[in-house]
Formats: sequence, structure tokens, C-alpha cells
Amino acid sequence: MKPINFNDSQDICDVVLSSRIAVVNMEDLDIAMAQRIIDFLSGTIYAIDGKLFNISSYIYICAPNNVDISGDYAEIAEQTGFDVPVLN
Amino acid sequence: MKPINFNDSQDICDVVLSSRIAVVNMEDLDIAMAQRIIDFLSGTIYAIDGKLFNISSYIYICAPNNVDISGDYAEIAEQTGFDVPVLN
Repeated sequence: MKPINFNDSQDICDVVLSSRIAVVNMEDLDIAMAQRIIDFLSGTIYAIDGKLFNISSYIYICAPNNVDISGDYAEIAEQTGFDVPVLN
Repeated sequence: MKPINFNDSQDICDVVLSSRIAVVNMEDLDIAMAQRIIDFLSGTIYAIDGKLFNISSYIYICAPNNVDISGDYAEIAEQTGFDVPVLN
């Protein structure tokens, strides 16, 4: 999914809330907007105890709790804490 | 609750996720940080179909879905849509 504005973050959340995985590409967004979307998505992921993976600088995967994703990616929503990514 | 940094937004979410109401006062925060916290809280409220009220410029009430709050306040999470507040 390639969000173009903040409202698109709700569509991304809807995907995760319906137990599917959302791959989010934010390369076309300015950093401030990307940060807002990540913050919103993080709030949703936190609420549903889901998972957030950082695949590359601007690619994230949001997943419900029952999904495992293989690969050497940084999982942000660890059991040890939930570090919301700060873009810069 | 008076958040002083972004991590405090998770404590606020925990309150709402445990079916309680959180009154959030962000008057001491700069706008950028307040916006990040509102975005995160909005993601949680959206996920749980909760309620977000704007009481004054920097006072918000976050509530689970089963709570009604009386008063002439702007309810942000309306049935007609979910407009995340933009601070300025």
C-alpha cells in the first residue's frame, strides 16, 4: 500500500484489523507525513498487540498478532517494548 | 494524565485498553510532540472503535467504546468518520 496522505493510514489499519498483512511503502511521502502515518499505525498495532516490521527506510509491514514473518528484519513491536520508529 | 514525552502515549493507551477513560492534558508539550501523541492515541482509538473528545485546545478525553460522555464537546471519532485532530 502506498499512502499519499494521512487519511490513508485508516485504510492500512483496516487491513490489519481484518487479520491481513499490510506492506506499506512511504517512499513518496515527506518525512513529517510518514511520521504521522507511522505514529497512527503504531497506535493501532499497540492496541491489537500486533507486529510492525521495518523492512527498509520507508517500507514497513504491519501484521496482526497471529502472523509470523521470516527474515532478518527489525521487529519493532517486541515483547520487551514497543519502540515507535522515529524517521529522520 | 500529563504526558511529557512520546512514550507516555503507551501509558494512556493502556488506560483506555483496560476500559477506563483517560483525560489527557498536553498543554506543556510542544506542538510537534502533542501531534505525535494524538496520532498514536488516534490509532489506538480507531482500532478499538473507541471515542476521542476534544475538550479544549490541549485537553483530550480518550474513552473506550462503551462509555458516553455528556457535554458540548467535539467528538472526533464520529460514526461518520474519524478525523484525527491536526494541531497548529
